[in-house]
Amino acid sequence: MTTRQNSSVLFIMGVSGSGKTHIGQLLAKALDISFIDADDYHSQSSIDKMSTGIPLTDADRYPWLDRLHQIAQRHLDIGCVIACSALKASYRQRLSTDISQKVSWIYLKGDFDIIYTRMQHRKDHFMGAEMLKSQFDTMEEPEDALVVNIEDSAEAIVSTIKNKLNMKAEIGVIGMGVMGKSLSRNLARNGFSIALYNRHVDGLEEDVAANFKSAHSELVSALAFDDLESFVESLASPRKILLMVNAGAAVDAVIQSLIDYLDPEDIILDAGNSHYLETNRRLQMLESKGIYFIGTGVSGGEKGALLGPSIMPSGVYEAYQKVEQYLTTIAAKDSNQEPCCTYVGRQGSGHFVKMIHNGIEYAEMQLLAECYAILKNQGMTNPQMADTMEAWKPDCDSYLLGITIDILRKKEAGSYLLDQVLDQAANKGTGKWATSTVADSGEAATMIPTALFARYLSAFKTKRQEAEALFTSNKQSNSISTSVLRDAYQFARIINHHQGFSLIDSVSAEHDWNVNLSEIARIWSEGCIIKSDLIKQLVNTFKQGGSIMFNTPWSTTLSQGYASIQSVVIESVQSQLHTPCLSEALSYFNGMKIGSGSANLIQAQRDYFGAHTYKRIDDPKGKSHHSDWTTTTD
Amino acid sequence: MTTRQNSSVLFIMGVSGSGKTHIGQLLAKALDISFIDADDYHSQSSIDKMSTGIPLTDADRYPWLDRLHQIAQRHLDIGCVIACSALKASYRQRLSTDISQKVSWIYLKGDFDIIYTRMQHRKDHFMGAEMLKSQFDTMEEPEDALVVNIEDSAEAIVSTIKNKLNMKAEIGVIGMGVMGKSLSRNLARNGFSIALYNRHVDGLEEDVAANFKSAHSELVSALAFDDLESFVESLASPRKILLMVNAGAAVDAVIQSLIDYLDPEDIILDAGNSHYLETNRRLQMLESKGIYFIGTGVSGGEKGALLGPSIMPSGVYEAYQKVEQYLTTIAAKDSNQEPCCTYVGRQGSGHFVKMIHNGIEYAEMQLLAECYAILKNQGMTNPQMADTMEAWKPDCDSYLLGITIDILRKKEAGSYLLDQVLDQAANKGTGKWATSTVADSGEAATMIPTALFARYLSAFKTKRQEAEALFTSNKQSNSISTSVLRDAYQFARIINHHQGFSLIDSVSAEHDWNVNLSEIARIWSEGCIIKSDLIKQLVNTFKQGGSIMFNTPWSTTLSQGYASIQSVVIESVQSQLHTPCLSEALSYFNGMKIGSGSANLIQAQRDYFGAHTYKRIDDPKGKSHHSDWTTTTD
Repeated sequence: MTTRQNSSVLFIMGVSGSGKTHIGQLLAKALDISFIDADDYHSQSSIDKMSTGIPLTDADRYPWLDRLHQIAQRHLDIGCVIACSALKASYRQRLSTDISQKVSWIYLKGDFDIIYTRMQHRKDHFMGAEMLKSQFDTMEEPEDALVVNIEDSAEAIVSTIKNKLNMKAEIGVIGMGVMGKSLSRNLARNGFSIALYNRHVDGLEEDVAANFKSAHSELVSALAFDDLESFVESLASPRKILLMVNAGAAVDAVIQSLIDYLDPEDIILDAGNSHYLETNRRLQMLESKGIYFIGTGVSGGEKGALLGPSIMPSGVYEAYQKVEQYLTTIAAKDSNQEPCCTYVGRQGSGHFVKMIHNGIEYAEMQLLAECYAILKNQGMTNPQMADTMEAWKPDCDSYLLGITIDILRKKEAGSYLLDQVLDQAANKGTGKWATSTVADSGEAATMIPTALFARYLSAFKTKRQEAEALFTSNKQSNSISTSVLRDAYQFARIINHHQGFSLIDSVSAEHDWNVNLSEIARIWSEGCIIKSDLIKQLVNTFKQGGSIMFNTPWSTTLSQGYASIQSVVIESVQSQLHTPCLSEALSYFNGMKIGSGSANLIQAQRDYFGAHTYKRIDDPKGKSHHSDWTTTTD
Repeated sequence: MTTRQNSSVLFIMGVSGSGKTHIGQLLAKALDISFIDADDYHSQSSIDKMSTGIPLTDADRYPWLDRLHQIAQRHLDIGCVIACSALKASYRQRLSTDISQKVSWIYLKGDFDIIYTRMQHRKDHFMGAEMLKSQFDTMEEPEDALVVNIEDSAEAIVSTIKNKLNMKAEIGVIGMGVMGKSLSRNLARNGFSIALYNRHVDGLEEDVAANFKSAHSELVSALAFDDLESFVESLASPRKILLMVNAGAAVDAVIQSLIDYLDPEDIILDAGNSHYLETNRRLQMLESKGIYFIGTGVSGGEKGALLGPSIMPSGVYEAYQKVEQYLTTIAAKDSNQEPCCTYVGRQGSGHFVKMIHNGIEYAEMQLLAECYAILKNQGMTNPQMADTMEAWKPDCDSYLLGITIDILRKKEAGSYLLDQVLDQAANKGTGKWATSTVADSGEAATMIPTALFARYLSAFKTKRQEAEALFTSNKQSNSISTSVLRDAYQFARIINHHQGFSLIDSVSAEHDWNVNLSEIARIWSEGCIIKSDLIKQLVNTFKQGGSIMFNTPWSTTLSQGYASIQSVVIESVQSQLHTPCLSEALSYFNGMKIGSGSANLIQAQRDYFGAHTYKRIDDPKGKSHHSDWTTTTD
């Protein structure tokens, strides 16, 4: 299913014994297109003639050539290699009638002596010197063909043909890290011709792309480079270059080094976890040079990237259309077999939703860690916890729940591996960016920051141990039932998703992105780390409009789970556990359902010391008021 | 206490009746320096001679001139205006011996007829035509004096003298908003000669500086401008310009418009709430032009700025030294009468600590709002709550507690004003910047974000009302005792200050600022919004080193208050109240005192789906490990 930028039908011509079949087959394989041997299409009468040594007349040949012409026509879109002697100009004219623009001729040229010597060694294809000589006599050498010297090795010939015919790769990948490798293999497995690039760093990164290519059979026709200019030159125009390098300065550095080699209309895709505001900036900078920039979120980890990730591209829509086929083909498929890839919106909206995806992921992971802490505090063993969570699947299954169960069950050398893992959680950029985005947004999306800060707190292991020694406590174990914990967990997950999607909605409105929340839920329903039954259901929720907590069935689940989360938070406090995300889910919900809160005091304080003014409940016009709060005029 | 850049002793000379005393007095007042009338220093014998009409000889005059010379010498540093006829060059030489560089001569010159006519109208100073003529005969006109025509009005003469002598203001203030006005009055009241500038916007901002000047008597000698170039020209070199404009684009715009008029060594002070990273950027940009930039936090609200704010300047230390006297003079004084102003450190460290000051303020305000919510939920009236909080003062007094009590007691037209205030809290930049800074820092300083998000939640008034209707609840009132609540409140305040100061310490280390926490606590002990008994005690805490929660007496207070905050959080959950900061204080403390937490699960999850690797407790070398978590090798 490769679409070629160039000639789609390649005729390999030459006298018998010049190697048409062998070279044709190799070439077809390298280009991942069909190979057709013209000799297989002779009519029975022609075969009979030839088998009895009667030379074919042109009249014999014409129906055969017409049939091959039809075959060539049928392969215009998908491409093929046709091996056919086509010695006379008139034969070639007949083969390429009306399609000459889409046909290329490759002429395998060699001396009589060489071909004759070669043929002596071939058992299955004996040909006399006379017969070969007659072929040489008949040959009308083509003027517009690519002439290849048959004395080179077959591999060299194929390579030369590819080069000379400008057989360029459809898409290039820069950066052969974990994700770059997985996406490259995914593209290749799906039949795209790709070029791979990894920088060369003496002693550290040498022949990375080439070694990677040799290690995987699906990459046989991939082109591997450690020279950037050659890599760029190997790509068909408009070039499509997917960056999979570390977010931040590396992205800028690669873009800068690429710019000189690129032409207007070329497309750079940044598939790393870049900050969406940086994507906005890069897009604008490249736009000024006529180069398109697609920022695209990719989720699914190493395995997802290989087998089908969730993909969140954004940028100029026309540019997206030019890369759509690659992205949708390699993406995971949802339950309706639709690709988990959708055009998110303008600018860096793709990286933005990926960032919030990761933020939601932070909180989902933290909630599981808190359930783990609560169950552990009850004295449960790891497999007991796994069994408990296994039983939750009908109510709240998710990829993360599944892997947590695997993790709890994982033994190594007789003991549970999880117990050997240090309790210091690391983080990359997206969690803190998401938290800053919450701060900038004006949305009270508290679960993401809370999960981030829980990771930060975990990092202070030494200080925590000091504090444990200093603040001695009689810890008691909790007696929260597993079903109450499950309901509290699901309650908190609903709040987490409610906040995350509300945040997307709010920032989308601010930037005029028109992000479709239902589509985001759909492309997150498979392939990504936060895929879950809950996300699947959200596809329909958002079709109804409105936000999660105000929508059925979620409002009902929240009402029904309220007593459970109250009880979990209270028991956690009594047991002196650290359950910040469960706590915060309840706190947010409580804050949300208080029609009249206590912020009037804050407004009064601000007016008192800073003359910031305040609004009054008895002034429907919403004017600003200021009072001297120190004296009473009563 | 004005230090002049130019001549510090001004002699006003001229014949009798030229107006030396009148002009001299006006000039001295305009420059805020002493006026000395030479006639007051004649010896008794000279007075006797003159009173009997005997003209003085030079021998009579020399002791008198020498006395005046001594007076001039004593006033070199603080300046003065001396009115003295000084008709002969030899007199003037005697008056300025050795100090001629620091002395200026102003010659009030007029025609005989004009002076004679004027003198006819003066009752107290009659002089005959003969005597005046003799003065004109004696006069040896000075060559190096500023010659002023006495025919002009006295005000014009004073203005001319000031202009001609280049009598420039010591410091200029740009931006006549609430804070700019208060700081200007503070500077003027403390004897500094200032220039004021406010932009001109047709119909909106017209003659703002001039009108402000006329409204306040302490600004009589201030110069008021709405033309930027004239404003800059009115300032002595190196110029010191204090910006008090809105943080953000306005600061850049003002700096841009200023740059062309400034010279190397000039100093711009930004006293607004700018983001410290922007201050870093501006400092660097101005440094490239040789201009100094001091970012300075100022806290205290309108009243503090007027009467003595807390001031947090930073930048290049040499530049700070040149503005130190202005800042320390106008700052609040601590309990030892030391100014609440200290050099914070390099770059934008001053704006950084001001931002964290405001963050701590956010959480302190939110904690009071939560106490208010809890007491209100018990059914207390506003004055009952005020009395309750009044009783807390011995344990936890603070400026914010004090104003909260005032607010609770404030009545207007028979009802409590607080009840009329809308519960939608607003915020400016510093709270969200502080939250983003927490996210960037890796510190789990959770109280500031929690307070910020509580304000955000308050803004969704309509949604909260919808949620209240949707999620009906049987709210119960709590029965938390006021002393338990007080202890929980104090517990949470300690956590809040612990986090805030730890954050300063951490970011200071990151930027190599060497911020002195004890000094920060000291300059926050008066003048600013978060001044409190707690802050005062922290001055000593930080002298001991270490952080708050690991230090006495705070660790003891935390231990003793633990049961109280547990009980407050539990009862708040039971009563369905929204008390996020009280909750978070406990949650943070719990998280901190768990030596072994549940983040091992998060690390395992990250390694499972993203091959992010993990560290092991049984590997003291801290190597990175990776496992296949799906299969058990046991």
